[in-house]
Amino acid sequence: MITRMSELFLRTLRDDPAEAEVASHKLLIRAGYIRPIAPGLYSWLPLGLRVLRNIERVVREEMNAIGGQEILFPALLPRAPYETTNRWTEYGDGIFRVKDRRDNDYLLAPTHEEVFTLTVKGEYSSYKDFPLALYQIQTKYRDEARPRAGLLRVREFVMKDSYTFDIDDAGLKSAYHAHREAYQRIFSRLAVRYVIVSAVSGAMGGSASEEFLAESPVGEDTYVRCLQSGYAANVEAVVTARPETLPTDGLADAVVHDTGDTPTIATLVEWANGANLGRAVTAADTLKNVLLKVRQPDGDWELLGIGVPGDREVDDKRLGAALDPAEYALLDDADFAKYPFLVKGYIGPKALLDNGVRYLVDPRIVDGTSWITGADELGKHVVGLVAGRDFTADGTIEAAEVRDGDPSPDGAGPLVAARGIEVGHIFQLGRKYTDAFAVDVLGEDGKPVRLTMGSYGLGVSRLVAVIAEQHHDELGLRWPSEVSPFDVHLVIANKDAEARAGAITLAGDLDRLGIEVLLDDRQASPGVKFKDAELLGVPWIVVVGRGWADGTVELRDRFSGETRELATGAGLATGITAAIAG
Amino acid sequence: MITRMSELFLRTLRDDPAEAEVASHKLLIRAGYIRPIAPGLYSWLPLGLRVLRNIERVVREEMNAIGGQEILFPALLPRAPYETTNRWTEYGDGIFRVKDRRDNDYLLAPTHEEVFTLTVKGEYSSYKDFPLALYQIQTKYRDEARPRAGLLRVREFVMKDSYTFDIDDAGLKSAYHAHREAYQRIFSRLAVRYVIVSAVSGAMGGSASEEFLAESPVGEDTYVRCLQSGYAANVEAVVTARPETLPTDGLADAVVHDTGDTPTIATLVEWANGANLGRAVTAADTLKNVLLKVRQPDGDWELLGIGVPGDREVDDKRLGAALDPAEYALLDDADFAKYPFLVKGYIGPKALLDNGVRYLVDPRIVDGTSWITGADELGKHVVGLVAGRDFTADGTIEAAEVRDGDPSPDGAGPLVAARGIEVGHIFQLGRKYTDAFAVDVLGEDGKPVRLTMGSYGLGVSRLVAVIAEQHHDELGLRWPSEVSPFDVHLVIANKDAEARAGAITLAGDLDRLGIEVLLDDRQASPGVKFKDAELLGVPWIVVVGRGWADGTVELRDRFSGETRELATGAGLATGITAAIAG
Repeated sequence: MITRMSELFLRTLRDDPAEAEVASHKLLIRAGYIRPIAPGLYSWLPLGLRVLRNIERVVREEMNAIGGQEILFPALLPRAPYETTNRWTEYGDGIFRVKDRRDNDYLLAPTHEEVFTLTVKGEYSSYKDFPLALYQIQTKYRDEARPRAGLLRVREFVMKDSYTFDIDDAGLKSAYHAHREAYQRIFSRLAVRYVIVSAVSGAMGGSASEEFLAESPVGEDTYVRCLQSGYAANVEAVVTARPETLPTDGLADAVVHDTGDTPTIATLVEWANGANLGRAVTAADTLKNVLLKVRQPDGDWELLGIGVPGDREVDDKRLGAALDPAEYALLDDADFAKYPFLVKGYIGPKALLDNGVRYLVDPRIVDGTSWITGADELGKHVVGLVAGRDFTADGTIEAAEVRDGDPSPDGAGPLVAARGIEVGHIFQLGRKYTDAFAVDVLGEDGKPVRLTMGSYGLGVSRLVAVIAEQHHDELGLRWPSEVSPFDVHLVIANKDAEARAGAITLAGDLDRLGIEVLLDDRQASPGVKFKDAELLGVPWIVVVGRGWADGTVELRDRFSGETRELATGAGLATGITAAIAG
Repeated sequence: MITRMSELFLRTLRDDPAEAEVASHKLLIRAGYIRPIAPGLYSWLPLGLRVLRNIERVVREEMNAIGGQEILFPALLPRAPYETTNRWTEYGDGIFRVKDRRDNDYLLAPTHEEVFTLTVKGEYSSYKDFPLALYQIQTKYRDEARPRAGLLRVREFVMKDSYTFDIDDAGLKSAYHAHREAYQRIFSRLAVRYVIVSAVSGAMGGSASEEFLAESPVGEDTYVRCLQSGYAANVEAVVTARPETLPTDGLADAVVHDTGDTPTIATLVEWANGANLGRAVTAADTLKNVLLKVRQPDGDWELLGIGVPGDREVDDKRLGAALDPAEYALLDDADFAKYPFLVKGYIGPKALLDNGVRYLVDPRIVDGTSWITGADELGKHVVGLVAGRDFTADGTIEAAEVRDGDPSPDGAGPLVAARGIEVGHIFQLGRKYTDAFAVDVLGEDGKPVRLTMGSYGLGVSRLVAVIAEQHHDELGLRWPSEVSPFDVHLVIANKDAEARAGAITLAGDLDRLGIEVLLDDRQASPGVKFKDAELLGVPWIVVVGRGWADGTVELRDRFSGETRELATGAGLATGITAAIAG
């Protein structure tokens, strides 16, 4: 079907919308693809919906190709199953909660593990029914604290979520890899530049997971990668390269010093460099101890001491991931008052270990390393405290910040940080949900087998913005062919009646060849039409212009900017079709 | 793509689910098309989703064919626009309301007039931009008091809703008729038996509206029609055939009688037939007066007296429609105590009219008709009170019940009642919403023109149940070809390896011809497979069975039950394709 711009519900805007900060947001609004309705809520106008549906089609095709079966759940779900898995509580303010007229609790689901698990439990009962891969392309909801950047962080969005069910770990691994490869094909077809990073799974639970991050400076996710080896990981998932342990023989004994008023690393380092210790001291030589109160989901809580080199901050995201699902907070003054052995600003490993406080240290604090740290008395620090000789922590924790230049855990070179937008997330969930709902099937040996699950999300509506973010220039959008709302944007830039009639005939010919044509048949100047064509971003622009009288039309490649002339006549539509095909 | 039942996520059930009452509910569950998640919330399993998508496709094609442009709004919408039109209040308990983390109010929209209107206002400003027809196929929500009958009355459902915008009434009429005809084509393609009935528009507002009711004894909507003329109307919309007025000359004077303890129509009729009035009296000779308190949306309220022939009840639905958008309630004893002129059980027109109570009567109470009614004193009635001579009501009201055999308003014959399921509803909204949001565009004469709107709903997911309701037999579903999840259900009913291989080859051949094949390749008995094929309801069943060795397969028509044999060999797939095409 030919779409005529004279009839299309579209008004392009000359100026960037005031509230828009990122390119995709500005251009999708200016080009009339979407409109804001409320914070984090957008309507899809005809062009935007076409792009969304194209992405859905690609995703559907690739999901079907790996044996995925499409089903569809309600977005409105009852509380009970989310109560069973504790996610009703864990989601906190992050979800929309709804009461019905009988005061029953519902939620607008952000993800559907629970009902998929229960549905499979309800239908299947034998190992013969597996493997099984189910998916849906569905509207989901999150009550985001800060909706931002147009379609990048919204409150109602379209996701593809799939779930695999297997009777053993090998099956799960195979399902996971099938999804991983399907995602690679999807992002490749959508022309999305991306990296796959190791990820921790947060509230989702489970053991192995990777994120697909679209490379973008406006992304909210920071990841690091090693350009030498290709290693890439979410900041939360980076494993610190652990130094070799050192011999302790011959190291000087630890000595306690009066350090005066030195409650911070900066003041301590200043003291040390004035104290004739025989060497220059930096913050990296100090051991900073941070005290937390940590509450497990079952309500139990404990004190936790974390030791990191004094030149590094504790990274809140990494700490959260390391402690998940526990919640935590820094100790406040009232807490300190309750534990007189904790001398704020002067805490050392000794007081913690002597008083039974669990003490975890950064992996860099290996046996044989020597530190300047608190001596557990006001105005006193200890110099030359050696790990493995003078104290032994209860374990290590990945909580210290990751920095550009840190060594890659695979030893291949330094890490560099970059930003990305999460467009996919694949998890080997394992038995978290099948345990919660006791989902067993009869095994081949007649004994019950607990199913193991994978869960795989893909941000369909977010991809509209991601693709716009990666494919645009100062003039407008530049859609890859698989997602473009049309194949050809045919501009009538000649007022002559014969040229106009010829353009309409050409549109019909292209349509019959299966080419989706946007025909600019408006009463407007060629300049206005060209500007709109560049803004809308259809990859091929055909101009019926001045050349018509001489028997030519112009074909413009919106990506490269190249133009070529094609001869009018019987073969024109076929010629255009061939040109744009390759 | 061939779908293999050995891999399909499907478990059919032998028994009807306990809670299911209507055939579509039973069969859609038993055949594994849908599963309940919570009251009024269902998941769509693979077969159900295929039917849903097929219906969507038909609807989309017909909407596009009349120039409809598809867009998509959020389901989660802010309160403000619904406040402007007062629907935030009017919907009462009927919608799901949601608060976000900042305590802002949202709703899960049951219909989208407000945001469509605002969006058009935001984009367009000239008469040249019209006519405009926009639609969406979208998930909608209603907090139904009583979800029932499977997919027939649910709380989350898929609707097609479209909205037209025109600069004048002629444009609206033309858009309305285009929709009406598109709906006729849609229901015809979906093989839905339906009637179009006049409807009142209830909370939607506006002037002209019709409902498309699918004929079904399990429908919730009662409508009446005249088999002679084809007139059909919702009970709420039936216009009473008004009798001719009668001459009053020569009628006896009204006389007040002591009627004793006769506060009901039955006791009054009994008195009358014992009172020597010179004729047999029935309830139809009495005039019953019902007292209401009526509250307008702006909060104003008034007393309202309604007079109906004593043999008819006041129909709550008709009364509600007649008074809409006002709310109303019967007077209780405390109310009666406040108005001593209202003598309960003995109320006549006189006390109402003398005391300034608005008094509306049934259209049958024409001038010259004579009534037995209350005399406004305890134990007294008046006989021979003549309308137009002894009292003149303030107007008429369509509130009395409609009965089988009542004359059709077009005079062509009697009305008969039937039940239907609302599958479509088309409204000439007029300027209700464009007035609320002051939507003017520049007219051809340079002056502002207020747009006029139509709104058109179609229950996409409900149609799955409606079609199942109209097309099934005792063995299972029988899908019309446009909506069937597959074109052909190919059953391997022969364990011979060669027959099995032949069936798989045939499935591939059919697939290449564009036929969607469900291949029953399971290790199960032919009996089980045939039962499932009948239950699932694909219109054509191909059986590779005993005849394979003799060079034949069987083609069964699930609708007619007819079977025929086709010869195996090179032309088989083409032969099947031709046979099912026509």
